[in-house]
Amino acid sequence: MKTAAMLETYPATMNVDRELLARVIDTLVECSQACTACADACLSEEMVADLRKCIRTDLDCADLCDTTARVLSRHTGYDANLTRAVLEACAVACRACADECERHAGMHEHCRVCAEACRACEAACAELVAAMA
Amino acid sequence: MKTAAMLETYPATMNVDRELLARVIDTLVECSQACTACADACLSEEMVADLRKCIRTDLDCADLCDTTARVLSRHTGYDANLTRAVLEACAVACRACADECERHAGMHEHCRVCAEACRACEAACAELVAAMA
Amino acid sequence: MKTAAMLETYPATMNVDRELLARVIDTLVECSQACTACADACLSEEMVADLRKCIRTDLDCADLCDTTARVLSRHTGYDANLTRAVLEACAVACRACADECERHAGMHEHCRVCAEACRACEAACAELVAAMA
Amino acid sequence: MKTAAMLETYPATMNVDRELLARVIDTLVECSQACTACADACLSEEMVADLRKCIRTDLDCADLCDTTARVLSRHTGYDANLTRAVLEACAVACRACADECERHAGMHEHCRVCAEACRACEAACAELVAAMA
Repeated sequence: MKTAAMLETYPATMNVDRELLARVIDTLVECSQACTACADACLSEEMVADLRKCIRTDLDCADLCDTTARVLSRHTGYDANLTRAVLEACAVACRACADECERHAGMHEHCRVCAEACRACEAACAELVAAMA
Repeated sequence: MKTAAMLETYPATMNVDRELLARVIDTLVECSQACTACADACLSEEMVADLRKCIRTDLDCADLCDTTARVLSRHTGYDANLTRAVLEACAVACRACADECERHAGMHEHCRVCAEACRACEAACAELVAAMA
Repeated sequence: MKTAAMLETYPATMNVDRELLARVIDTLVECSQACTACADACLSEEMVADLRKCIRTDLDCADLCDTTARVLSRHTGYDANLTRAVLEACAVACRACADECERHAGMHEHCRVCAEACRACEAACAELVAAMA
Repeated sequence: MKTAAMLETYPATMNVDRELLARVIDTLVECSQACTACADACLSEEMVADLRKCIRTDLDCADLCDTTARVLSRHTGYDANLTRAVLEACAVACRACADECERHAGMHEHCRVCAEACRACEAACAELVAAMA
Protein backbone atom coordinates (compact mmCIF):
# COMPACT_ATOMS: atom_id res chain seq x y z
CA MET A 1 0.00 0.00 0.00
CA LYS A 2 1.11 3.55 -0.81
CA THR A 3 -1.09 5.03 1.95
CA ALA A 4 1.76 6.43 4.06
CA ALA A 5 3.57 7.76 0.98
CA MET A 6 0.40 9.51 -0.19
CA LEU A 7 -0.20 11.02 3.25
CA GLU A 8 3.31 12.50 3.19
CA THR A 9 2.50 14.30 -0.05
CA TYR A 10 -0.66 15.98 1.24
CA PRO A 11 -0.19 19.70 0.51
CA ALA A 12 -1.90 21.13 3.60
CA THR A 13 -1.75 20.70 7.36
CA MET A 14 -3.53 17.80 9.03
CA ASN A 15 -4.79 17.47 12.60
CA VAL A 16 -4.34 13.70 12.81
CA ASP A 17 -1.20 11.65 13.38
CA ARG A 18 -0.24 10.53 9.86
CA GLU A 19 1.40 7.27 10.92
CA LEU A 20 -1.69 6.19 12.84
CA LEU A 21 -4.00 7.32 10.06
CA ALA A 22 -2.08 5.35 7.42
CA ARG A 23 -2.18 2.26 9.61
CA VAL A 24 -5.93 2.52 10.15
CA ILE A 25 -6.64 3.00 6.44
CA ASP A 26 -4.49 -0.02 5.56
CA THR A 27 -6.29 -2.11 8.18
CA LEU A 28 -9.67 -1.07 6.79
CA VAL A 29 -8.71 -1.94 3.26
CA GLU A 30 -7.35 -5.32 4.34
CA CYS A 31 -10.52 -6.06 6.30
CA SER A 32 -12.77 -5.12 3.40
CA GLN A 33 -10.99 -7.50 1.05
CA ALA A 34 -11.02 -10.31 3.62
CA CYS A 35 -14.78 -9.86 4.17
CA THR A 36 -15.57 -9.90 0.43
CA ALA A 37 -13.48 -13.06 0.06
CA CYS A 38 -15.02 -14.68 3.17
CA ALA A 39 -18.57 -14.03 1.95
CA ASP A 40 -17.71 -15.76 -1.31
CA ALA A 41 -15.93 -18.67 0.40
CA CYS A 42 -18.96 -19.17 2.68
CA LEU A 43 -21.12 -19.21 -0.43
CA SER A 44 -19.05 -22.09 -1.80
CA GLU A 45 -19.27 -24.21 1.34
CA GLU A 46 -21.56 -27.26 1.28
CA MET A 47 -23.12 -26.03 4.52
CA VAL A 48 -23.92 -22.59 3.07
CA ALA A 49 -27.34 -22.65 4.78
CA ASP A 50 -25.58 -22.41 8.17
CA LEU A 51 -23.52 -19.44 7.00
CA ARG A 52 -26.27 -17.03 5.90
CA LYS A 53 -25.71 -14.61 8.74
CA CYS A 54 -21.94 -14.79 8.26
CA ILE A 55 -22.30 -13.85 4.59
CA ARG A 56 -24.54 -10.94 5.50
CA THR A 57 -22.19 -9.55 8.16
CA ASP A 58 -19.27 -9.98 5.71
CA LEU A 59 -21.07 -7.92 3.07
CA ASP A 60 -22.02 -5.17 5.51
CA CYS A 61 -18.51 -5.04 6.95
CA ALA A 62 -16.89 -4.82 3.51
CA ASP A 63 -19.13 -1.88 2.57
CA LEU A 64 -18.50 -0.06 5.85
CA CYS A 65 -14.72 -0.57 5.66
CA ASP A 66 -14.55 0.67 2.07
CA THR A 67 -16.52 3.80 2.88
CA THR A 68 -14.56 4.47 6.07
CA ALA A 69 -11.23 4.08 4.23
CA ARG A 70 -12.42 6.61 1.65
CA VAL A 71 -13.58 9.14 4.24
CA LEU A 72 -10.25 8.81 6.09
CA SER A 73 -8.33 9.24 2.84
CA ARG A 74 -9.81 12.72 2.41
CA HIS A 75 -8.33 15.54 4.49
CA THR A 76 -9.70 18.63 2.75
CA GLY A 77 -12.51 20.21 4.77
CA TYR A 78 -11.98 17.74 7.59
CA ASP A 79 -15.05 17.16 9.82
CA ALA A 80 -14.32 15.47 13.16
CA ASN A 81 -18.00 14.73 13.83
CA LEU A 82 -18.37 12.80 10.61
CA THR A 83 -15.07 10.97 11.02
CA ARG A 84 -16.02 9.83 14.50
CA ALA A 85 -19.53 8.70 13.51
CA VAL A 86 -18.20 6.73 10.56
CA LEU A 87 -15.46 5.11 12.63
CA GLU A 88 -17.99 4.13 15.29
CA ALA A 89 -20.37 2.61 12.76
CA CYS A 90 -17.46 0.75 11.16
CA ALA A 91 -16.32 -0.59 14.54
CA VAL A 92 -19.85 -1.94 15.11
CA ALA A 93 -19.77 -3.70 11.73
CA CYS A 94 -16.29 -5.13 12.39
CA ARG A 95 -17.29 -6.41 15.84
CA ALA A 96 -20.47 -8.04 14.50
CA CYS A 97 -18.52 -9.70 11.69
CA ALA A 98 -15.70 -10.83 13.99
CA ASP A 99 -18.24 -12.31 16.43
CA GLU A 100 -20.01 -14.20 13.68
CA CYS A 101 -16.84 -15.41 11.92
CA GLU A 102 -15.34 -16.61 15.20
CA ARG A 103 -18.31 -18.95 15.65
CA HIS A 104 -17.23 -20.75 12.46
CA ALA A 105 -13.47 -20.32 12.81
CA GLY A 106 -12.90 -23.87 14.03
CA MET A 107 -14.57 -25.32 10.97
CA HIS A 108 -13.75 -22.79 8.24
CA GLU A 109 -10.27 -21.40 7.85
CA HIS A 110 -11.57 -18.42 5.83
CA CYS A 111 -13.73 -17.42 8.78
CA ARG A 112 -10.72 -17.69 11.08
CA VAL A 113 -8.58 -15.42 8.92
CA CYS A 114 -11.45 -13.00 8.35
CA ALA A 115 -12.24 -12.80 12.08
CA GLU A 116 -8.62 -11.78 12.68
CA ALA A 117 -8.92 -9.02 10.11
CA CYS A 118 -12.19 -7.80 11.64
CA ARG A 119 -10.84 -7.76 15.21
CA ALA A 120 -7.76 -5.83 14.10
CA CYS A 121 -9.99 -3.38 12.26
CA GLU A 122 -12.38 -2.94 15.19
CA ALA A 123 -9.35 -2.11 17.37
CA ALA A 124 -7.87 0.25 14.78
CA CYS A 125 -11.13 2.19 14.49
CA ALA A 126 -11.37 2.47 18.30
CA GLU A 127 -7.74 3.58 18.51
CA LEU A 128 -8.33 6.39 16.03
CA VAL A 129 -11.52 7.50 17.77
CA ALA A 130 -9.56 7.66 21.06
CA ALA A 131 -6.70 9.59 19.42
CA MET A 132 -9.19 12.14 18.09
CA ALA A 133 -10.69 12.85 21.53
CA MET B 1 -37.03 2.16 -8.36
CA LYS B 2 -38.11 -1.42 -7.65
CA THR B 3 -37.27 -1.10 -3.95
CA ALA B 4 -40.85 -1.57 -2.66
CA ALA B 5 -41.48 -4.42 -5.09
CA MET B 6 -38.31 -6.18 -3.97
CA LEU B 7 -39.20 -5.75 -0.30
CA GLU B 8 -42.56 -7.42 -0.92
CA THR B 9 -40.79 -10.49 -2.29
CA TYR B 10 -38.52 -10.98 0.72
CA PRO B 11 -39.08 -14.61 1.80
CA ALA B 12 -38.81 -14.16 5.58
CA THR B 13 -40.30 -11.96 8.26
CA MET B 14 -39.00 -8.44 8.84
CA ASN B 15 -39.15 -6.26 11.94
CA VAL B 16 -39.24 -2.94 10.10
CA ASP B 17 -42.14 -1.21 8.35
CA ARG B 18 -41.59 -2.07 4.67
CA GLU B 19 -43.16 1.10 3.28
CA LEU B 20 -40.92 3.30 5.42
CA LEU B 21 -37.86 1.21 4.65
CA ALA B 22 -38.43 1.42 0.90
CA ARG B 23 -38.86 5.18 1.12
CA VAL B 24 -35.62 5.60 3.09
CA ILE B 25 -33.63 3.44 0.67
CA ASP B 26 -34.96 5.41 -2.31
CA THR B 27 -34.08 8.69 -0.60
CA LEU B 28 -30.54 7.45 0.09
CA VAL B 29 -30.01 6.37 -3.49
CA GLU B 30 -31.33 9.69 -4.79
CA CYS B 31 -29.06 11.61 -2.43
CA SER B 32 -25.99 9.60 -3.41
CA GLN B 33 -26.51 10.33 -7.10
CA ALA B 34 -27.15 14.03 -6.45
CA CYS B 35 -23.94 14.27 -4.40
CA THR B 36 -21.81 12.57 -7.04
CA ALA B 37 -23.26 14.90 -9.67
CA CYS B 38 -22.85 17.99 -7.46
CA ALA B 39 -19.19 17.19 -6.77
CA ASP B 40 -18.58 17.00 -10.50
CA ALA B 41 -20.57 20.17 -11.25
CA CYS B 42 -18.58 22.03 -8.56
CA LEU B 43 -15.42 20.75 -10.22
CA SER B 44 -16.53 22.36 -13.49
CA GLU B 45 -17.28 25.76 -11.98
CA GLU B 46 -14.83 28.61 -12.66
CA MET B 47 -14.71 29.28 -8.93
CA VAL B 48 -13.80 25.68 -8.08
CA ALA B 49 -11.28 26.94 -5.49
CA ASP B 50 -14.20 28.20 -3.37
CA LEU B 51 -15.96 24.86 -3.59
CA ARG B 52 -13.27 22.52 -2.24
CA LYS B 53 -15.10 21.76 0.98
CA CYS B 54 -18.36 21.29 -0.90
CA ILE B 55 -16.76 18.71 -3.20
CA ARG B 56 -15.34 16.87 -0.21
CA THR B 57 -18.65 16.73 1.67
CA ASP B 58 -20.37 15.61 -1.55
CA LEU B 59 -17.93 12.71 -1.95
CA ASP B 60 -18.26 11.63 1.69
CA CYS B 61 -22.04 11.87 1.57
CA ALA B 62 -22.27 9.83 -1.64
CA ASP B 63 -20.17 7.05 -0.10
CA LEU B 64 -22.16 7.02 3.14
CA CYS B 65 -25.51 6.98 1.33
CA ASP B 66 -24.46 4.12 -0.95
CA THR B 67 -23.28 2.01 1.96
CA THR B 68 -26.35 2.80 4.07
CA ALA B 69 -28.68 1.90 1.19
CA ARG B 70 -26.87 -1.44 0.84
CA VAL B 71 -27.04 -2.24 4.56
CA LEU B 72 -30.77 -1.38 4.60
CA SER B 73 -31.37 -3.55 1.54
CA ARG B 74 -30.20 -6.63 3.47
CA HIS B 75 -32.62 -8.23 5.93
CA THR B 76 -31.02 -11.62 6.60
CA GLY B 77 -29.41 -11.71 10.05
CA TYR B 78 -30.68 -8.22 10.82
CA ASP B 79 -28.62 -6.30 13.41
CA ALA B 80 -30.37 -3.27 14.95
CA ASN B 81 -27.14 -1.91 16.50
CA LEU B 82 -25.39 -1.79 13.15
CA THR B 83 -28.39 -0.35 11.34
CA ARG B 84 -28.71 2.44 13.89
CA ALA B 85 -24.98 3.29 13.85
CA VAL B 86 -24.90 3.41 10.06
CA LEU B 87 -28.03 5.57 9.87
CA GLU B 88 -26.60 7.97 12.44
CA ALA B 89 -23.29 8.29 10.58
CA CYS B 90 -25.18 8.82 7.32
CA ALA B 91 -27.35 11.52 8.89
CA VAL B 92 -24.18 13.33 10.01
CA ALA B 93 -22.81 13.18 6.45
CA CYS B 94 -26.11 14.38 4.97
CA ARG B 95 -26.36 17.29 7.43
CA ALA B 96 -22.76 18.36 6.77
CA CYS B 97 -23.32 18.22 3.01
CA ALA B 98 -26.67 20.04 3.21
CA ASP B 99 -25.11 22.78 5.36
CA GLU B 100 -22.24 23.24 2.93
CA CYS B 101 -24.38 23.10 -0.24
CA GLU B 102 -26.87 25.59 1.19
CA ARG B 103 -24.07 28.13 1.51
CA HIS B 104 -23.68 28.02 -2.29
CA ALA B 105 -27.33 27.43 -3.21
CA GLY B 106 -27.96 31.04 -4.21
CA MET B 107 -25.13 30.96 -6.70
CA HIS B 108 -25.09 27.36 -7.92
CA GLU B 109 -28.31 25.62 -8.84
CA HIS B 110 -26.65 22.17 -8.48
CA CYS B 111 -25.86 22.98 -4.85
CA ARG B 112 -29.48 24.02 -4.30
CA VAL B 113 -30.87 20.77 -5.69
CA CYS B 114 -28.24 18.71 -3.88
CA ALA B 115 -28.95 20.45 -0.55
CA GLU B 116 -32.62 19.48 -0.92
CA ALA B 117 -31.66 15.86 -1.49
CA CYS B 118 -29.34 15.90 1.53
CA ARG B 119 -31.92 17.50 3.86
CA ALA B 120 -34.53 14.95 2.78
CA CYS B 121 -32.04 12.16 3.37
CA GLU B 122 -31.00 13.46 6.79
CA ALA B 123 -34.70 13.51 7.77
CA ALA B 124 -35.32 10.04 6.35
CA CYS B 125 -32.40 8.54 8.30
CA ALA B 126 -33.65 10.20 11.51
CA GLU B 127 -37.19 8.98 10.88
CA LEU B 128 -36.01 5.38 10.51
CA VAL B 129 -33.83 5.61 13.64
CA ALA B 130 -36.88 6.88 15.55
CA ALA B 131 -39.10 4.12 14.16
CA MET B 132 -36.57 1.50 15.30
CA ALA B 133 -36.57 2.76 18.91
CA MET C 1 -34.43 10.63 -8.50
CA LYS C 2 -33.01 14.12 -9.13
CA THR C 3 -30.76 12.88 -11.93
CA ALA C 4 -32.39 14.90 -14.72
CA ALA C 5 -32.59 18.02 -12.53
CA MET C 6 -28.90 17.71 -11.65
CA LEU C 7 -27.94 17.25 -15.31
CA GLU C 8 -29.77 20.47 -16.21
CA THR C 9 -27.63 22.37 -13.69
CA TYR C 10 -24.29 21.18 -15.08
CA PRO C 11 -22.30 24.35 -15.73
CA ALA C 12 -20.45 23.28 -18.89
CA THR C 13 -21.30 21.77 -22.25
CA MET C 14 -21.90 18.04 -22.61
CA ASN C 15 -21.56 15.83 -25.68
CA VAL C 16 -24.21 13.35 -24.64
CA ASP C 17 -28.01 13.62 -24.82
CA ARG C 18 -29.01 14.61 -21.29
CA GLU C 19 -32.43 12.93 -21.35
CA LEU C 20 -30.90 9.62 -22.41
CA LEU C 21 -28.07 9.95 -19.91
CA ALA C 22 -30.45 10.62 -17.00
CA ARG C 23 -32.55 7.62 -17.98
CA VAL C 24 -29.52 5.31 -18.14
CA ILE C 25 -28.21 6.49 -14.74
CA ASP C 26 -31.63 5.95 -13.15
CA THR C 27 -31.83 2.47 -14.66
CA LEU C 28 -28.37 1.61 -13.32
CA VAL C 29 -29.23 2.79 -9.83
CA GLU C 30 -32.51 0.85 -9.86
CA CYS C 31 -30.71 -2.30 -11.06
CA SER C 32 -28.03 -2.02 -8.39
CA GLN C 33 -30.59 -1.82 -5.60
CA ALA C 34 -32.61 -4.73 -7.02
CA CYS C 35 -29.46 -6.88 -7.24
CA THR C 36 -28.41 -6.13 -3.65
CA ALA C 37 -31.94 -6.97 -2.46
CA CYS C 38 -32.10 -10.13 -4.62
CA ALA C 39 -28.78 -11.43 -3.27
CA ASP C 40 -30.12 -11.03 0.25
CA ALA C 41 -33.49 -12.58 -0.57
CA CYS C 42 -31.71 -15.57 -2.17
CA LEU C 43 -29.66 -15.87 1.02
CA SER C 44 -32.88 -16.19 3.03
CA GLU C 45 -34.40 -18.92 0.84
CA GLU C 46 -34.47 -22.47 2.21
CA MET C 47 -32.88 -23.66 -1.03
CA VAL C 48 -29.99 -21.18 -0.77
CA ALA C 49 -27.58 -23.91 -1.91
CA ASP C 50 -29.20 -23.81 -5.36
CA LEU C 51 -28.86 -20.04 -5.55
CA ARG C 52 -25.10 -19.62 -5.01
CA LYS C 53 -24.41 -18.53 -8.56
CA CYS C 54 -27.40 -16.19 -8.50
CA ILE C 55 -26.08 -14.48 -5.36
CA ARG C 56 -22.67 -14.08 -6.94
CA THR C 57 -23.99 -12.56 -10.16
CA ASP C 58 -26.22 -10.25 -8.10
CA LEU C 59 -23.23 -8.98 -6.11
CA ASP C 60 -21.11 -8.44 -9.21
CA CYS C 61 -23.95 -6.70 -11.03
CA ALA C 62 -24.65 -4.37 -8.08
CA ASP C 63 -20.99 -3.31 -7.94
CA LEU C 64 -20.76 -2.75 -11.70
CA CYS C 65 -24.00 -0.75 -11.81
CA ASP C 66 -22.93 1.48 -8.91
CA THR C 67 -19.58 2.22 -10.51
CA THR C 68 -21.09 2.82 -13.94
CA ALA C 69 -23.70 5.20 -12.50
CA ARG C 70 -20.90 7.15 -10.82
CA VAL C 71 -18.76 7.36 -13.96
CA LEU C 72 -21.78 8.53 -15.98
CA SER C 73 -22.62 11.13 -13.32
CA ARG C 74 -19.28 12.85 -13.93
CA HIS C 75 -18.95 15.05 -17.02
CA THR C 76 -15.78 17.01 -16.29
CA GLY C 77 -12.86 15.69 -18.34
CA TYR C 78 -15.16 13.30 -20.20
CA ASP C 79 -13.40 10.25 -21.71
CA ALA C 80 -15.40 8.36 -24.34
CA ASN C 81 -13.06 5.34 -24.27
CA LEU C 82 -13.57 4.84 -20.56
CA THR C 83 -17.30 5.43 -20.70
CA ARG C 84 -17.68 2.86 -23.47
CA ALA C 85 -15.53 0.23 -21.71
CA VAL C 86 -17.41 0.65 -18.44
CA LEU C 87 -20.80 0.47 -20.15
CA GLU C 88 -19.75 -2.69 -21.99
CA ALA C 89 -18.52 -4.36 -18.81
CA CYS C 90 -21.72 -3.36 -17.04
CA ALA C 91 -23.84 -4.77 -19.86
CA VAL C 92 -22.00 -8.10 -19.52
CA ALA C 93 -22.73 -8.14 -15.78
CA CYS C 94 -26.40 -7.25 -16.33
CA ARG C 95 -26.82 -9.94 -18.98
CA ALA C 96 -25.18 -12.60 -16.80
CA CYS C 97 -27.37 -11.64 -13.85
CA ALA C 98 -30.55 -11.50 -15.93
CA ASP C 99 -29.77 -14.94 -17.41
CA GLU C 100 -29.22 -16.42 -13.98
CA CYS C 101 -32.22 -14.74 -12.31
CA GLU C 102 -34.52 -15.80 -15.16
CA ARG C 103 -33.69 -19.44 -14.42
CA HIS C 104 -35.26 -18.98 -10.96
CA ALA C 105 -37.98 -16.48 -11.89
CA GLY C 106 -40.75 -19.07 -11.88
CA MET C 107 -39.96 -20.09 -8.33
CA HIS C 108 -38.70 -16.87 -6.75
CA GLU C 109 -40.52 -13.60 -7.28
CA HIS C 110 -37.42 -11.59 -6.26
CA CYS C 111 -35.48 -13.21 -9.09
CA ARG C 112 -38.29 -12.35 -11.52
CA VAL C 113 -38.30 -8.66 -10.52
CA CYS C 114 -34.50 -8.52 -10.47
CA ALA C 115 -34.23 -10.12 -13.92
CA GLU C 116 -36.51 -7.38 -15.28
CA ALA C 117 -34.25 -4.71 -13.78
CA CYS C 118 -31.14 -6.38 -15.23
CA ARG C 119 -32.62 -6.75 -18.73
CA ALA C 120 -33.69 -3.10 -18.71
CA CYS C 121 -30.23 -2.10 -17.57
CA GLU C 122 -28.46 -4.24 -20.16
CA ALA C 123 -30.58 -2.54 -22.84
CA ALA C 124 -29.96 0.93 -21.41
CA CYS C 125 -26.18 0.41 -21.43
CA ALA C 126 -26.31 -0.85 -25.02
CA GLU C 127 -28.48 2.12 -26.08
CA LEU C 128 -25.99 4.59 -24.63
CA VAL C 129 -23.03 2.83 -26.26
CA ALA C 130 -24.88 3.03 -29.59
CA ALA C 131 -25.72 6.72 -29.08
CA MET C 132 -22.04 7.46 -28.41
CA ALA C 133 -20.88 5.86 -31.68
CA MET D 1 -3.19 -7.66 3.04
CA LYS D 2 -4.64 -11.12 3.74
CA THR D 3 -5.54 -11.66 0.07
CA ALA D 4 -3.20 -14.60 -0.51
CA ALA D 5 -4.16 -16.21 2.82
CA MET D 6 -7.86 -15.89 1.98
CA LEU D 7 -7.33 -17.38 -1.49
CA GLU D 8 -5.65 -20.42 0.07
CA THR D 9 -8.74 -21.05 2.18
CA TYR D 10 -11.18 -21.04 -0.73
CA PRO D 11 -13.10 -24.33 -0.44
CA ALA D 12 -13.52 -25.13 -4.14
CA THR D 13 -11.33 -25.39 -7.22
CA MET D 14 -10.25 -22.29 -9.11
CA ASN D 15 -9.19 -21.90 -12.72
CA VAL D 16 -6.87 -18.97 -12.13
CA ASP D 17 -3.34 -18.91 -10.74
CA ARG D 18 -3.82 -17.93 -7.09
CA GLU D 19 -0.49 -16.16 -6.68
CA LEU D 20 -1.15 -13.96 -9.72
CA LEU D 21 -4.73 -13.30 -8.64
CA ALA D 22 -3.68 -12.22 -5.14
CA ARG D 23 -1.08 -9.88 -6.59
CA VAL D 24 -3.59 -8.27 -8.98
CA ILE D 25 -6.17 -7.76 -6.21
CA ASP D 26 -3.56 -6.16 -3.95
CA THR D 27 -2.45 -3.87 -6.77
CA LEU D 28 -6.05 -2.83 -7.43
CA VAL D 29 -6.69 -2.05 -3.78
CA GLU D 30 -3.47 -0.04 -3.54
CA CYS D 31 -4.34 1.90 -6.69
CA SER D 32 -7.84 2.69 -5.46
CA GLN D 33 -6.55 4.16 -2.21
CA ALA D 34 -3.86 6.17 -4.00
CA CYS D 35 -6.45 7.61 -6.41
CA THR D 36 -8.84 8.62 -3.60
CA ALA D 37 -5.95 10.29 -1.78
CA CYS D 38 -4.66 11.98 -4.95
CA ALA D 39 -8.11 13.41 -5.77
CA ASP D 40 -8.23 14.94 -2.30
CA ALA D 41 -4.66 16.23 -2.44
CA CYS D 42 -5.39 17.85 -5.83
CA LEU D 43 -8.45 19.46 -4.24
CA SER D 44 -6.18 21.05 -1.62
CA GLU D 45 -3.69 22.49 -4.10
CA GLU D 46 -3.77 26.23 -4.73
CA MET D 47 -3.91 25.50 -8.45
CA VAL D 48 -6.93 23.22 -8.13
CA ALA D 49 -8.44 24.76 -11.26
CA ASP D 50 -5.66 23.16 -13.32
CA LEU D 51 -6.30 19.77 -11.74
CA ARG D 52 -10.00 19.29 -12.52
CA LYS D 53 -9.43 16.53 -15.04
CA CYS D 54 -6.94 14.84 -12.74
CA ILE D 55 -9.50 14.77 -9.92
CA ARG D 56 -12.11 13.30 -12.24
CA THR D 57 -9.83 10.54 -13.54
CA ASP D 58 -8.77 9.79 -9.95
CA LEU D 59 -12.41 9.35 -8.88
CA ASP D 60 -13.26 7.14 -11.85
CA CYS D 61 -10.15 5.03 -11.37
CA ALA D 62 -10.84 4.53 -7.65
CA ASP D 63 -14.37 3.31 -8.38
CA LEU D 64 -13.23 0.96 -11.15
CA CYS D 65 -10.41 -0.49 -9.04
CA ASP D 66 -12.71 -1.11 -6.07
CA THR D 67 -15.29 -2.88 -8.21
CA THR D 68 -12.66 -4.92 -10.06
CA ALA D 69 -11.04 -6.01 -6.77
CA ARG D 70 -14.45 -7.17 -5.54
CA VAL D 71 -15.27 -9.11 -8.71
CA LEU D 72 -11.84 -10.80 -8.60
CA SER D 73 -12.34 -11.65 -4.90
CA ARG D 74 -15.36 -13.80 -5.80
CA HIS D 75 -14.76 -17.25 -7.26
CA THR D 76 -18.16 -18.90 -6.91
CA GLY D 77 -19.93 -19.07 -10.26
CA TYR D 78 -16.89 -17.68 -12.04
CA ASP D 79 -17.63 -15.97 -15.38
CA ALA D 80 -14.59 -15.42 -17.64
CA ASN D 81 -16.47 -13.01 -19.93
CA LEU D 82 -17.35 -10.70 -17.07
CA THR D 83 -13.90 -10.89 -15.50
CA ARG D 84 -12.25 -9.97 -18.80
CA ALA D 85 -14.63 -7.08 -19.51
CA VAL D 86 -14.16 -5.63 -16.03
CA LEU D 87 -10.37 -5.97 -16.20
CA GLU D 88 -10.32 -4.26 -19.60
CA ALA D 89 -12.48 -1.36 -18.37
CA CYS D 90 -10.29 -1.03 -15.29
CA ALA D 91 -7.13 -0.98 -17.41
CA VAL D 92 -8.62 1.88 -19.46
CA ALA D 93 -9.34 3.82 -16.26
CA CYS D 94 -5.85 3.17 -14.90
CA ARG D 95 -4.19 4.24 -18.15
CA ALA D 96 -6.25 7.44 -18.34
CA CYS D 97 -5.43 8.28 -14.74
CA ALA D 98 -1.74 7.46 -15.12
CA ASP D 99 -1.54 9.63 -18.26
CA GLU D 100 -3.19 12.55 -16.49
CA CYS D 101 -1.22 12.21 -13.24
CA GLU D 102 2.08 11.97 -15.12
CA ARG D 103 1.41 15.40 -16.64
CA HIS D 104 1.51 16.84 -13.11
CA ALA D 105 4.10 14.51 -11.60
CA GLY D 106 6.92 17.04 -11.82
CA MET D 107 4.96 19.57 -9.82
CA HIS D 108 2.89 17.44 -7.47
CA GLU D 109 4.43 14.54 -5.61
CA HIS D 110 0.99 12.98 -4.97
CA CYS D 111 0.44 12.80 -8.72
CA ARG D 112 3.83 11.13 -9.16
CA VAL D 113 3.09 8.45 -6.56
CA CYS D 114 -0.45 7.95 -7.86
CA ALA D 115 0.76 7.64 -11.46
CA GLU D 116 3.08 4.84 -10.35
CA ALA D 117 0.17 3.02 -8.70
CA CYS D 118 -1.99 3.44 -11.81
CA ARG D 119 0.73 2.19 -14.20
CA ALA D 120 1.34 -0.85 -12.00
CA CYS D 121 -2.39 -1.51 -11.91
CA GLU D 122 -2.83 -1.12 -15.66
CA ALA D 123 -0.04 -3.67 -16.14
CA ALA D 124 -1.50 -6.04 -13.54
CA CYS D 125 -4.92 -5.99 -15.22
CA ALA D 126 -3.33 -6.65 -18.62
CA GLU D 127 -1.25 -9.50 -17.18
CA LEU D 128 -4.33 -11.20 -15.76
CA VAL D 129 -6.28 -10.78 -19.01
CA ALA D 130 -3.35 -12.39 -20.85
CA ALA D 131 -3.14 -15.24 -18.32
CA MET D 132 -6.85 -15.96 -18.80
CA ALA D 133 -6.55 -16.29 -22.58
